[in-house]
Amino acid sequence: MPKIVDYNGRKKLIAKATWNIISTEGLQGVSVRSIAKEANLSLGAVRHYFNTQEELIEYALTLVEEQVNERINTIIFQPISPKEMVLKILMELVHTGDKKVEMQVWLEYILYRIRKKDLKNDKVYEGITDVIYKLNAAGLLKENLSIEEEIVHLHALVDGLALHILMGLVQLDEKGIEKLIERELNRLFK
Amino acid sequence: MPKIVDYNGRKKLIAKATWNIISTEGLQGVSVRSIAKEANLSLGAVRHYFNTQEELIEYALTLVEEQVNERINTIIFQPISPKEMVLKILMELVHTGDKKVEMQVWLEYILYRIRKKDLKNDKVYEGITDVIYKLNAAGLLKENLSIEEEIVHLHALVDGLALHILMGLVQLDEKGIEKLIERELNRLFK
Repeated sequence: MPKIVDYNGRKKLIAKATWNIISTEGLQGVSVRSIAKEANLSLGAVRHYFNTQEELIEYALTLVEEQVNERINTIIFQPISPKEMVLKILMELVHTGDKKVEMQVWLEYILYRIRKKDLKNDKVYEGITDVIYKLNAAGLLKENLSIEEEIVHLHALVDGLALHILMGLVQLDEKGIEKLIERELNRLFK
Repeated sequence: MPKIVDYNGRKKLIAKATWNIISTEGLQGVSVRSIAKEANLSLGAVRHYFNTQEELIEYALTLVEEQVNERINTIIFQPISPKEMVLKILMELVHTGDKKVEMQVWLEYILYRIRKKDLKNDKVYEGITDVIYKLNAAGLLKENLSIEEEIVHLHALVDGLALHILMGLVQLDEKGIEKLIERELNRLFK
């Protein structure tokens, strides 16, 4: 009888191994071989999903995006005001606490793409742009704002905070960080 | 007659080679061997200055800091107002134009240190903290500010902008970026 393989479980195992390798060795440590070893799988088992380092690296980024999206999806159907909702979403993007490793993987990925001179679209930038334009179209933002400038500012603040939290430089607790972002939103909202 | 060696010129050659390697291959590409090859020097010539990868990487960061400091030093004796001076200094820290590669090297360095779980003090954070406290002590800032919060905000904005400029995401020109930072300073200054 052929062995029954739990494909989803195995993919999760590979995901976790990829995560571990990136956070300790960086993207340069990622290979089909190193992941197989870390996950205690055969080379063939990993190759069933991923053939190249590039594929594994893209997968690591997809994992970050999926985890953030999952958390954001639990927010968007809550019965809260648009401002509270945007605040909660932005708080997911600053990756506090255990979620810091997401920022680490994302930054590794960005630098990898810059070296290859092949940066792809940034989903956080697109997301923030989309949200701000929608809020503005709904008449929720102050009248005399330069929307383009506000997007650049809010995006820089959020990623700057995420970077400094990862670096252990931010002495504020989660409430304090939320207060900082809320103050920015107060400047934008009517 | 022994060959006369221009030590300063040679160190600059090694610096430039280290820079080139980091911006195309990342820190993992840096080794005594790869730098010697890139700079067209013998292994011994490079080893005269640097024996290990770690030493070369620390040197790359020192180079970034030296370049930024040099530019800042040309600002601090200009006959301009404190606010204009701070604005000009912060503009040096967002690394626009050709200076983007400084941010790239700095980020590579930060991730390297995070992987080693051995982050050192961040000079930009210390610099911004120092400046804000001095401005406050001189009575130049508004009365009811939370200084700790403002430092976190300004620092996040500056590094976030630098990151997004490196990523090619900021559609504003240098004047537009300056305007963004100036607006923040207007919020802080009396």
